[in-house]
Amino acid sequence: MSGGGEHGIRLEAVRLGIDTRHEPVLFLRRDSEVARSEGFQAMSQVRVDTDTASIIATLMIVESELLRAGRAGLSEAAWRRLGLEDGETLVLHHPRPVDSLAHVRAKVYGAELDAGQFERIINDVVAGRYMDVQLAAFVAACSGERLTREEIVHLTRAMVGAGERLTWAGSPIMDKHSVGGLPGNRTTPIVVAIAAEAGLTMPKTSSRAITSPAGTADTMETLTRVDLGLDEMRRVVEREGGCLAWGGSASLSPADDILIRVERALDLDSEGQLVASVLSKKVAAGSTHVVIDMPVGPTAKVRSLAAAERLSGHFHAVAGTLGLALHIDVGDGSQPIGRGIGPALEARDVLSVLRCEPDAPADLRQRALQLAAGILRLSGLARAEDAVARATEMLDSGGAWSRFQRICEAQGGLREPPRAAYHYDVFSEREGTVDGIDNRKAARLAKLAGAPADKAAGLGLCVRLGDRVRRGDVLMTVHAESPGELEYALEYFRAHPDVITLSAD
Amino acid sequence: MSGGGEHGIRLEAVRLGIDTRHEPVLFLRRDSEVARSEGFQAMSQVRVDTDTASIIATLMIVESELLRAGRAGLSEAAWRRLGLEDGETLVLHHPRPVDSLAHVRAKVYGAELDAGQFERIINDVVAGRYMDVQLAAFVAACSGERLTREEIVHLTRAMVGAGERLTWAGSPIMDKHSVGGLPGNRTTPIVVAIAAEAGLTMPKTSSRAITSPAGTADTMETLTRVDLGLDEMRRVVEREGGCLAWGGSASLSPADDILIRVERALDLDSEGQLVASVLSKKVAAGSTHVVIDMPVGPTAKVRSLAAAERLSGHFHAVAGTLGLALHIDVGDGSQPIGRGIGPALEARDVLSVLRCEPDAPADLRQRALQLAAGILRLSGLARAEDAVARATEMLDSGGAWSRFQRICEAQGGLREPPRAAYHYDVFSEREGTVDGIDNRKAARLAKLAGAPADKAAGLGLCVRLGDRVRRGDVLMTVHAESPGELEYALEYFRAHPDVITLSAD
Repeated sequence: MSGGGEHGIRLEAVRLGIDTRHEPVLFLRRDSEVARSEGFQAMSQVRVDTDTASIIATLMIVESELLRAGRAGLSEAAWRRLGLEDGETLVLHHPRPVDSLAHVRAKVYGAELDAGQFERIINDVVAGRYMDVQLAAFVAACSGERLTREEIVHLTRAMVGAGERLTWAGSPIMDKHSVGGLPGNRTTPIVVAIAAEAGLTMPKTSSRAITSPAGTADTMETLTRVDLGLDEMRRVVEREGGCLAWGGSASLSPADDILIRVERALDLDSEGQLVASVLSKKVAAGSTHVVIDMPVGPTAKVRSLAAAERLSGHFHAVAGTLGLALHIDVGDGSQPIGRGIGPALEARDVLSVLRCEPDAPADLRQRALQLAAGILRLSGLARAEDAVARATEMLDSGGAWSRFQRICEAQGGLREPPRAAYHYDVFSEREGTVDGIDNRKAARLAKLAGAPADKAAGLGLCVRLGDRVRRGDVLMTVHAESPGELEYALEYFRAHPDVITLSAD
Repeated sequence: MSGGGEHGIRLEAVRLGIDTRHEPVLFLRRDSEVARSEGFQAMSQVRVDTDTASIIATLMIVESELLRAGRAGLSEAAWRRLGLEDGETLVLHHPRPVDSLAHVRAKVYGAELDAGQFERIINDVVAGRYMDVQLAAFVAACSGERLTREEIVHLTRAMVGAGERLTWAGSPIMDKHSVGGLPGNRTTPIVVAIAAEAGLTMPKTSSRAITSPAGTADTMETLTRVDLGLDEMRRVVEREGGCLAWGGSASLSPADDILIRVERALDLDSEGQLVASVLSKKVAAGSTHVVIDMPVGPTAKVRSLAAAERLSGHFHAVAGTLGLALHIDVGDGSQPIGRGIGPALEARDVLSVLRCEPDAPADLRQRALQLAAGILRLSGLARAEDAVARATEMLDSGGAWSRFQRICEAQGGLREPPRAAYHYDVFSEREGTVDGIDNRKAARLAKLAGAPADKAAGLGLCVRLGDRVRRGDVLMTVHAESPGELEYALEYFRAHPDVITLSAD
């Protein structure tokens, strides 16, 4: 065939510098021979091969002079996944049919899938063979109460099997996870410090924020280095018993990262997938004992105690099958925790609790102690009746603070979190009692002010539910790194002033 | 706020000449103020406003010099839908939350939706407020047997209501539709000619091929003009009783066009959505009487008589509620119909039947007469026992042929379909009886040869099931407009020689 070997036609790869997040996109000229002869249509799936790698990309057809003849442009995600260098040669094909889509269709039609079927689906998902619409159909078909417990177990196992898996010397390996974090609920650094100080092993990997104003990795990054390689993590954990690293460099349950992105776009609360998502990450990270933080409140992810109970039942059943020891702590999710919302502001709260400062946020301290007690109890180090006391002792003695400093030193040195240059105080316009703090709107306001990309940006809350305020009291402070972003957040606030509400009295 | 009025920041629109089919895509520089201050992330949804129009687009972030500062690039679909000119000003915002997604989630969780909920979903779909993943979740949630008959009725009504609706003087207004066409099943031009000649009104709008080697509009385009405006259609229909136009210029049930694209990507057979899709188009086109052609065969869309019966039940129930008179003709779908597969090749078959040529394909003639008889009967013009005879008389008298010529003249003149320059004959390698012709593989081969974009390209079948062939007989001919494309199709054929199979004897 003219110009092509086998089926494919060879084209020179060009990096276009277009960020499409996780979506590999291929750009071809309308008049390119391969587009015509293969009958590729815009937005169809195309297999892109190099000598060493192969991906499925979505095709966009260029009708202008953005691309020279004989070249194929690639988005950043496609470029990364193929590990390309400029000028390398690509060969394009129609993708092979994805056989596991038959199982997705069966699930859509209401069938119960077995372990092998979940495995084939998840392997194809991780190999990038699914289009977003196909991922969405799978997510929708597994949502609501559509997965049996057996299916949740199969799905979890398939997700673990499709990625890397860490192993650690000894046991127990402790871990924690928060389901649908409240803004400011930054207990993890405190819990790890207490657990490590108690002599436990807690190699904690955390994510960056995806839709929230801060993730644990964003917060820790204002205090120390978090992008540790696996060897560095091992070194830190061997020396200090714990670490606080960003989990993104290891490929743990990569299917979860792919599915979670689609679930977020759909805003679907799938209990089965939530359980598989959390537990697959934990098993892949090599954890043996896990404490789950489950805040319940009207603007939190889990909205009622009944929902918390059902979800807990799934967690326990699946964890049991996978051999994970599990403790679930159902807590109050009616308002943000701590004062700061945003990476550096939350880091200050964490430092303040660890340093046992007199004005440290009591709710953050209390929640962290509660979860740390869960860790001590689950590990067997403490009994139920004195676990909180043990955790408190570890914190109040300064042991947790010194352990935290040593962990940060081992990760590359402890630093002070940055401060924002621009502030705006929101004053109370009348006297009253605080009767509502909206988790979602508070998070939104912090993000509009620049969090998490601007590390110092965010919100500082000065009141909590039930507080009595007078006219002119400061309710909260907006922090931003530029006057434009401050104004932008305030514009939102003026349109949505009900972030904090007072009772009518 | 610096640089922006209200929320938005103003940017100059640039047409990038990137074809993304239906998907509006917005390209912004990473360092643009709006991307930073609005916190837009790649692949998030952005509302793009001009003074007169507003769309939701998917954002891609440009990190290279493809875009100059202060500019926003747009894909062709976005450009078209905003009706832009170069240099016009755009204002960008976060999109408003799409409230109807709550109904989609309810459907995913298994709820039954009411008329108002379907209406809100479909209106948002048509307004472009749904991302593809959200469309996919809706499609998946409605697939299998998940829609009740009441829901199918609600969905159909919502789809009709969300687009334009044609009205015609008098009644009945006849229409036909084929469910999952076999390759070559090009009966529509013949049926319209017979119906119009019988004095009926049949203002037929047809689609172009989406995944098949030819749609009726593609075939008719090789014979006459098909992109008629509504006024032109009316003029042709008033004069000749019928027309054969492309339906794309009128906005009839636009939700259907959007949903069908996602259904195809998922390869989900949703009976409820098929019924809503077909009947919403018919009601919107102003039709009162509809004949449905439902071929049944192992490689056709409807694969068994049981499936045909269930589907027919839905069709009759929903059509009844909508006040449509309906006749369903379940026919043989075991092999392609006629000889040609591809726009011009099928047009030749149509002309040959209309002209009553002695070697006209008997199966196409017979199928067209059967469906035309259904039209005559449903309209009340003929009784069941003599409807086929009436249709045959209309065809054999030359009346249908002369009516067809006049319709084409009214649409802009009848022309001869083009012929391909390159041919390849596939010979039988042995003696035997034809025992299989694969609809899907035959369609694939015709598409690889260039159909439907290359009008003269496609396949000419020389045998039918049960034919006795000798070694050296021609089984079929591949037609192409370039030697490269011919070779490309043949490469596929060499890898998949079982398009036509002979019994082992």
